[in-house]
Amino acid sequence: MICPATAVRRLAPIVVTAMVAGCQLPAASAPAAGTDGERTPQTPRVEWGMVVHGGAGTIRREQMTPEREREYRAALTDALRTGHGALAQGAHALDAVVAALQLLEDSPLFNAGRGAVFTADGINALDASIMDGSTLRAGAVAGVTDVKNPIALARLVMEKSPHVLLSGDGAERFAREQGIPSTPKEWFFTERRWQELQDAKAAEATPADKFGTVGAIALDRSGRLAAGTSTGGMTNKKWGRIGDSPLIGAGTYANARCAVSGTGWGEYYIRNAVAYDICARVEYAGVSIATAAADVVMTKLAQQQKNTGGVIAMDREGDITAPFNTAGMYRGWIDQNGGITVAIFAGE
Amino acid sequence: MICPATAVRRLAPIVVTAMVAGCQLPAASAPAAGTDGERTPQTPRVEWGMVVHGGAGTIRREQMTPEREREYRAALTDALRTGHGALAQGAHALDAVVAALQLLEDSPLFNAGRGAVFTADGINALDASIMDGSTLRAGAVAGVTDVKNPIALARLVMEKSPHVLLSGDGAERFAREQGIPSTPKEWFFTERRWQELQDAKAAEATPADKFGTVGAIALDRSGRLAAGTSTGGMTNKKWGRIGDSPLIGAGTYANARCAVSGTGWGEYYIRNAVAYDICARVEYAGVSIATAAADVVMTKLAQQQKNTGGVIAMDREGDITAPFNTAGMYRGWIDQNGGITVAIFAGE
Repeated sequence: MICPATAVRRLAPIVVTAMVAGCQLPAASAPAAGTDGERTPQTPRVEWGMVVHGGAGTIRREQMTPEREREYRAALTDALRTGHGALAQGAHALDAVVAALQLLEDSPLFNAGRGAVFTADGINALDASIMDGSTLRAGAVAGVTDVKNPIALARLVMEKSPHVLLSGDGAERFAREQGIPSTPKEWFFTERRWQELQDAKAAEATPADKFGTVGAIALDRSGRLAAGTSTGGMTNKKWGRIGDSPLIGAGTYANARCAVSGTGWGEYYIRNAVAYDICARVEYAGVSIATAAADVVMTKLAQQQKNTGGVIAMDREGDITAPFNTAGMYRGWIDQNGGITVAIFAGE
Repeated sequence: MICPATAVRRLAPIVVTAMVAGCQLPAASAPAAGTDGERTPQTPRVEWGMVVHGGAGTIRREQMTPEREREYRAALTDALRTGHGALAQGAHALDAVVAALQLLEDSPLFNAGRGAVFTADGINALDASIMDGSTLRAGAVAGVTDVKNPIALARLVMEKSPHVLLSGDGAERFAREQGIPSTPKEWFFTERRWQELQDAKAAEATPADKFGTVGAIALDRSGRLAAGTSTGGMTNKKWGRIGDSPLIGAGTYANARCAVSGTGWGEYYIRNAVAYDICARVEYAGVSIATAAADVVMTKLAQQQKNTGGVIAMDREGDITAPFNTAGMYRGWIDQNGGITVAIFAGE
């Protein structure tokens, strides 16, 4: 793969360097490109830190206003800073994942939590999952309609139930038993998403750009990895469809040496067990996290279907990669020194 | 691994040879033990055929009446013969999987379809999934309460919807749209399962033996693999819990070279992406299907939790394996000549 020249953008007060699909360039804190044969294509490396995404899809510069672009970059930056703050104090990787994702869920910009898209029935059905790589414990919820922060509920499923995946009314009953109040429907109403549903219904189709899931992965100061993903799913979805985001192994996976969160066309992520497949390639095929993620996203998925999506992935050494086969993916990462990289478009 | 001597039982009109946990011995149609270094532990090999399971758990000979044992062996044999009949006529591996699983779903003996266990709310919530290894297409349903054959509905999800996994009321609406009528609740009522729920409620716990899922994998005459799994889940389950059976990669997986169906403590199957992990080891680590399945079930799962369950697995060469770390697993396979092996207990 040929990496284009790095474009450096300054968005006070942070320095934003480029991340190119399947070809992230090293930031200031990472070793120089080409110094480590095991990390090809070159990836940034952190001692500890985290990576977030806000969805992949047909995100093009010409369709983005400067104001909207600033909002997205600021939201990703806030999420990274919040997670970093937790990690800096010695918190568990899970804490950083939940803290970052709650901010992204509370933002109307992303298709998760507050900004979730509407189903065909005009409701918001939210999915989330989380996994602790140090213990292989996991929790997830699918199709909850009145929980403000599904990622926090997923963590409660992991920690307070014997199960991994709870769904629908049952998951909401579990939330009440855990003291999480019902959030009024108005919280999840955004004019933009409502209009998208009307457009989709008028077209009698799901929109071409059905992405916008949020995800986070973290490596904490004790070397523990965690991963989490949260989504509102697909605009105009019917029949209680469950996508990849709440499914451990498809949209989310973490173990002792690898953490992955995906975003894209969920059915392909399920069929290919994308999140687990990346970790399996690292473990069994002995390839780097960057090679594993690129092989799955840029080759395997892209051969099956164009514009399937992307992933963020990191390994226990702190190598980070974020390949996507779409026009763009909202993404960013933060290193142990608080150095932040945020990017949106391909080739940026 | 040391394999005990083969016990041969004759159940007219079929010859039943032994299958030992993690250590299946070759049948008449398989090569002699030790002739193939790549297939260690030794496994039966078929040109084409299928494998079924009816659940793993604390199945002990001393707790089984001769009549009940005959019923189980007859049901597994019927399922294998039915699938074989389809394959013999050149049918797709998917057809054999569905035909065999529908028989097991219709039997009150197994925890799937008619014999499904009851949830804490006193209903039967059924899960199933199916995957076509030749195309990577997959379909699944979770939490349906009024569909007689969830495996057939899973196949319709695969073939007639753009989705992989549908859940709850939505999946039932999809069934109606596909012309599948609502099955009266009485069909799913079995005194044995109702009593198990009362016992579980009295004990305020899920029963220790919560298994009984059915599964099937097939290799057809054109070399295509398929896998399917169907279950009633866990007695006394709450909160809309979804287990591994409807989850592609956890309870079911098939690709061009490997097919797996699992049965056991679903949460561990999800956390370890068991079905996909076995296929990933075959593909990336280059081990045999028997080694891959044994490493996952007898080592990885067993180290995390005793009595987690078992799997049936086969590869594109027709090598079959069926390891389990419980006292027993209802299991059997049929070769291209109609030779049937059925077994229940460990060490049998």
